[in-house]
Amino acid sequence: MVSAAKIDVDFDYDGPLMKTEVPGPRSRELMKQLNGIQNAEAVHFFCNYEESRGNYLVDVDGNRMLDLYSQISSIPIGYSHPSLIKLLQQPQNLSTFINRPALGILPPENFAERLKESLLSVAPKGLPQVITMSCGSCSNENAFKAIFMWYRNKERGHNNVTKEELESCMINQPPGCPDYAMLSFMGGFHGRTLGCLATTHSKAIHKLDIPSLDWPIAPFPRLKYPLEDFVKENQQEEARCLEEVEDLIVKYRKKKKIVAGIIVEPIQSEGGDNHASDDFFRKLRDIARKHGCAFLVDEVQTGGGCTGKFWAHEHWGLDDPADVVTFSKKMMTGGFFHKEEFRPNAPYRIFNTWLGDPSKNLMLAEVIKVIKREDLLNNATHAGKALLTGLLDLQARYPHLISRVRGRGTFCSFDTPNDATRNKLITIARNKGVVLGGCGDRSIRFRPTLIFKDHHAHLFLNIFSDILANFK
Amino acid sequence: MVSAAKIDVDFDYDGPLMKTEVPGPRSRELMKQLNGIQNAEAVHFFCNYEESRGNYLVDVDGNRMLDLYSQISSIPIGYSHPSLIKLLQQPQNLSTFINRPALGILPPENFAERLKESLLSVAPKGLPQVITMSCGSCSNENAFKAIFMWYRNKERGHNNVTKEELESCMINQPPGCPDYAMLSFMGGFHGRTLGCLATTHSKAIHKLDIPSLDWPIAPFPRLKYPLEDFVKENQQEEARCLEEVEDLIVKYRKKKKIVAGIIVEPIQSEGGDNHASDDFFRKLRDIARKHGCAFLVDEVQTGGGCTGKFWAHEHWGLDDPADVVTFSKKMMTGGFFHKEEFRPNAPYRIFNTWLGDPSKNLMLAEVIKVIKREDLLNNATHAGKALLTGLLDLQARYPHLISRVRGRGTFCSFDTPNDATRNKLITIARNKGVVLGGCGDRSIRFRPTLIFKDHHAHLFLNIFSDILANFK
Repeated sequence: MVSAAKIDVDFDYDGPLMKTEVPGPRSRELMKQLNGIQNAEAVHFFCNYEESRGNYLVDVDGNRMLDLYSQISSIPIGYSHPSLIKLLQQPQNLSTFINRPALGILPPENFAERLKESLLSVAPKGLPQVITMSCGSCSNENAFKAIFMWYRNKERGHNNVTKEELESCMINQPPGCPDYAMLSFMGGFHGRTLGCLATTHSKAIHKLDIPSLDWPIAPFPRLKYPLEDFVKENQQEEARCLEEVEDLIVKYRKKKKIVAGIIVEPIQSEGGDNHASDDFFRKLRDIARKHGCAFLVDEVQTGGGCTGKFWAHEHWGLDDPADVVTFSKKMMTGGFFHKEEFRPNAPYRIFNTWLGDPSKNLMLAEVIKVIKREDLLNNATHAGKALLTGLLDLQARYPHLISRVRGRGTFCSFDTPNDATRNKLITIARNKGVVLGGCGDRSIRFRPTLIFKDHHAHLFLNIFSDILANFK
Repeated sequence: MVSAAKIDVDFDYDGPLMKTEVPGPRSRELMKQLNGIQNAEAVHFFCNYEESRGNYLVDVDGNRMLDLYSQISSIPIGYSHPSLIKLLQQPQNLSTFINRPALGILPPENFAERLKESLLSVAPKGLPQVITMSCGSCSNENAFKAIFMWYRNKERGHNNVTKEELESCMINQPPGCPDYAMLSFMGGFHGRTLGCLATTHSKAIHKLDIPSLDWPIAPFPRLKYPLEDFVKENQQEEARCLEEVEDLIVKYRKKKKIVAGIIVEPIQSEGGDNHASDDFFRKLRDIARKHGCAFLVDEVQTGGGCTGKFWAHEHWGLDDPADVVTFSKKMMTGGFFHKEEFRPNAPYRIFNTWLGDPSKNLMLAEVIKVIKREDLLNNATHAGKALLTGLLDLQARYPHLISRVRGRGTFCSFDTPNDATRNKLITIARNKGVVLGGCGDRSIRFRPTLIFKDHHAHLFLNIFSDILANFK
């Protein structure tokens, strides 16, 4: 079970080590216990985070697994990174963890400085403003709000708010609460709070029984792979989707529902790792500008370096930057970057008690130092290439099990014939010491940490090749 | 400036110590810096959290202030509490801070145990289930969702979801996304994400320009003080509001908009510290049951012990418990308690990547130990009585400046003649070494930590008495 692998980060383990089936007896016992307190049916297994290191997740039964899912893509530089341990051991940092401020009114002395050395040091070009939030959903919710305010101010053309607006907004009615909408894409995922959920269209179980808003939903391209064999078909598919976006904006305006913004993921993640070309996104950005809509890029899952650039949308080569970019997960704190013109025109308009968490900013600053020092963006490109090449090879050998191999950096995925096969493959892989994640109907997605190296890719490919060879 | 005060918690300071105006020169400089990155107009001053201890907040200009606002009511046991410092210094706890898991799928070994020793050890009677979230808004958003699912399942009467429901929900339409509503109260505050914001009606600036939902809004009683002088008027006022609640439920059902739940704060906080009688809430609970609506009590600001009971709604003496109780702020993690019947009937229905944060659960467990060990609920009752008695005395002496003194535990407040006077009083107090917070149009609210003692109340009252005597 143990594969020999080069150790190049001294805190990483040298391979998986399996002792029981997963979930093992201790995990099963704990599941039963937790299920008494809350629905625990989504739990895969229980973890021993103290023993987890680098790319390896250790469970409570002593199994050590190569983790290619990294807590739904939210562990940037591996488990128990020595730099983060050191950070926590410094007495001067204690206060940041135990005295959580209301950042919007009483920030700590180093707040701006820390934003500069962390988030602003990796800000997408043209987006010099940043607001932090506690999670991805709050990031998108507040980005929507910033967009709605911007749109309304543009429409008003002056700063005077009428008495009617101030009164009607208190009872949820226009003109104070205007009938604005965000346009989203079928297959997209932007979070699960009510505003976000109105733009999420990945799985029915996320949306069922929850009241929603009549906001326009455009089709997202369904590309054929390999891309080079289907250039014309894919171009036509993308053109069809873009046309539909414009039609929807016009159609909704006719019914007095104004599309104030468009939200899109650079790669639809929960929805099945659906890619579109850089050209598609450039044209989408143009459509947004043409119709006066804000262009919001949701980088909650794609951001942080895994595609080989810090932000996946930096691959597109936009002339005019996105208007708003949201983040969370690997960034440890949620939040959003935005252009100057989207800056709230008064205090307390984008606000909540915590507005993020300085202890997360502290850790993020260190994570970004490590990313730069260890050149982890180039590593993602390199290791991603090793992974993708290997997957393409497996696809050639096992076309009945693997299809539509795709990826950017380590942000890779492939399709399986169906949901049952996908889940079976994930389970077998887990018992062989590899944690994988699913997405969409029948895809498997790779979301390793940024310290996932070529040799981890080879290790995985060896194990998975054996699994495919023996798959029945 | 320094008042002599008994030191009974050894880490607390013995009084305010003022060196400059607040904000001082260093704060002003930092404000300018932060304002380059984001709208920083809400910032009061910048803090030195390393030097802040107990009930005292120290700013970057070296001013030490008695903090009666405690980061919008979110510091449970004071700044830099020795028990929390000790917790952070224990090497075995490091992992919890640097390896943040996706709690819903890969929880740490001690997850259930920690929920038991923390949240469940203080769970409201009859609410044995708990789900954690990262903030107050996400707590309410997800509580709404649990209520909508519960209501729909009740309506369905069976577990079979139709194909039409599964398909329509993907495009935000009924029957999959039913036209359900939460009933809320004018003056209430439940957060600022789109779902929460549809139930928030405290200030126009929170809601202006943001699209909303046509959900019913009932009047909240406007009681007259002192309560004992206006028994009959107040009863009539409460009866009027309750009648309106029932009328709205019926009226909205007629237009096919179903009120699935009622959300209410035990004391409307942001909206101006508006109280209602225990009898009002008991009757509201009955109305909810009578009409088949869930009864959601939002304890984000009132919870955690400041009213003298762990949950403010425990004062009401309900026969039938609330259905759902949300929390955040002083609880350090967001989340909600609920009855068994509100348990999601499938995994991933109430879900997000982080689902809270085990590092907050770790600190909360310690905070709850301190609350129990130091008998801080009784302390809140006792210190609150000292504070309220003193405020009533000031009201008698300065009726042109102070009116409608009210409170439960240390959760006290009073009205000033108008917004300008209120803000002036807050500024003067700050320059005399006391941090106060406003709420509503013209109220000042007290939100001290749970280690606020009688002597802190007397210290404040002395300072404030001088301020009132010299107020021009």
